Amino acid sequence: MPNLLLTICYDGSAFHGWQIQKNAVTVQEVFQNALKKVFEAQPAIHGCSRTDSGVHANEYCINFHTEQSITDENIIRALNTYLPREIAVTACRRVPDGFHARYSCVSKEYVYKLYNGQIRNPFLSNYAYHYRYPVDEALLNQAAQAFVGRHDFSGFCSVGSKITDTVRNVKSFSVSREGDMVLFRVCADGFLYNMVRIMVGTLLFVAQGRITLEELPGVIASKERKRAGKTAPPQGLYLNHVNYEEGDLLG
Amino acid sequence: MPNLLLTICYDGSAFHGWQIQKNAVTVQEVFQNALKKVFEAQPAIHGCSRTDSGVHANEYCINFHTEQSITDENIIRALNTYLPREIAVTACRRVPDGFHARYSCVSKEYVYKLYNGQIRNPFLSNYAYHYRYPVDEALLNQAAQAFVGRHDFSGFCSVGSKITDTVRNVKSFSVSREGDMVLFRVCADGFLYNMVRIMVGTLLFVAQGRITLEELPGVIASKERKRAGKTAPPQGLYLNHVNYEEGDLLG
Repeated sequence: MPNLLLTICYDGSAFHGWQIQKNAVTVQEVFQNALKKVFEAQPAIHGCSRTDSGVHANEYCINFHTEQSITDENIIRALNTYLPREIAVTACRRVPDGFHARYSCVSKEYVYKLYNGQIRNPFLSNYAYHYRYPVDEALLNQAAQAFVGRHDFSGFCSVGSKITDTVRNVKSFSVSREGDMVLFRVCADGFLYNMVRIMVGTLLFVAQGRITLEELPGVIASKERKRAGKTAPPQGLYLNHVNYEEGDLLG
Repeated sequence: MPNLLLTICYDGSAFHGWQIQKNAVTVQEVFQNALKKVFEAQPAIHGCSRTDSGVHANEYCINFHTEQSITDENIIRALNTYLPREIAVTACRRVPDGFHARYSCVSKEYVYKLYNGQIRNPFLSNYAYHYRYPVDEALLNQAAQAFVGRHDFSGFCSVGSKITDTVRNVKSFSVSREGDMVLFRVCADGFLYNMVRIMVGTLLFVAQGRITLEELPGVIASKERKRAGKTAPPQGLYLNHVNYEEGDLLG
């Protein structure tokens, strides 16, 4: 049975994250409702990850198996007709039978947008974190390198997470500025619950002088949540890119 | 009594335009409610123009007289505390007694944003008009020059307007592209009701070959609304800049 990989983009402002839950509108629920209208049998879908309430996705991957014969182009067109304007299907391709959007993923890239202007920008209130204090992006970029590599990120995980393997491999982490926008770009083989937002909040503690460059490796090694910074708010966070092995995509 | 000129910026998505009306939330109403909390006597305010439901402002000007002594910086800070995040005060200055945000205005610039990507962008649904057909911005820029100068714009005014003087002086009109975004930028001494949106809709008729470059001056001269294009939707429109004479600002 053909296995389809869909790429979608969504404005998370209107949703309580990806995963279906009772009494709250989620991206998965809305997406499945559109899928029902296009595919006769309702396929079981696999999303590449959970995202939190208010978090956005420039690129989110989903796969499902279907026997129905529709061209990729028509799938994109039909789904976009039924989806609300906060979600768009941007690509569709056939992948090998064993491909799984979540388990085949080798790494993901998140971008966190911090708006560093003095006065709030009404057009960015749902799309970036407004932080008006000084941010030295070169210093934070240097600090961010402390996260790169294989670490136990227990201290960068919100309480309540049941995950036991807390080691993750951060492949790259950069902080740069485009005018008043400071961009945190981090790629890893996986992320713990709220890990990106806690890393960003910790770098803001570095910006504030509350943690020095020299202290940061010790904060990470301590595995203590209370030594890290605050959890930065969700509206600045974007799942930006999901990486798969070429071999898994091509079969 | 000191006369204050405030510049504000707002995301029009949440509002039914500028002007106060019954049974609908407008920018003016929300702004006046914030003003009441900062200034003891409720000053009468003058806005530079009306804007329609869903239309945005990068720069909108307001003036009012007050005896209350607060520094400009504190006025900005206090109002921004009480205003919702869709509106921000960006500047405050003292102007001569006779200055009036509307009557002292010599020209205004609007920008219309058209998103020309094939697939809709969820982040732009309230902030640009999604138009997926080909747009030759160089051709439209050439066509737009037909609007420049002093014309009777009766044909570019929505029905229901009671204005009798329909002559306006369009000072400049450019069409350019930044990636998938096509920008229409027009400056005039004044605009009739829906004039910018009808001019943009008419240029899209040029893009579609329904009106030729040669025919456009005749369409304008005909003063017939039915010969012009459709009214482009509101979410692409931004009041971008309001121009005053330096003499009126400095006294």
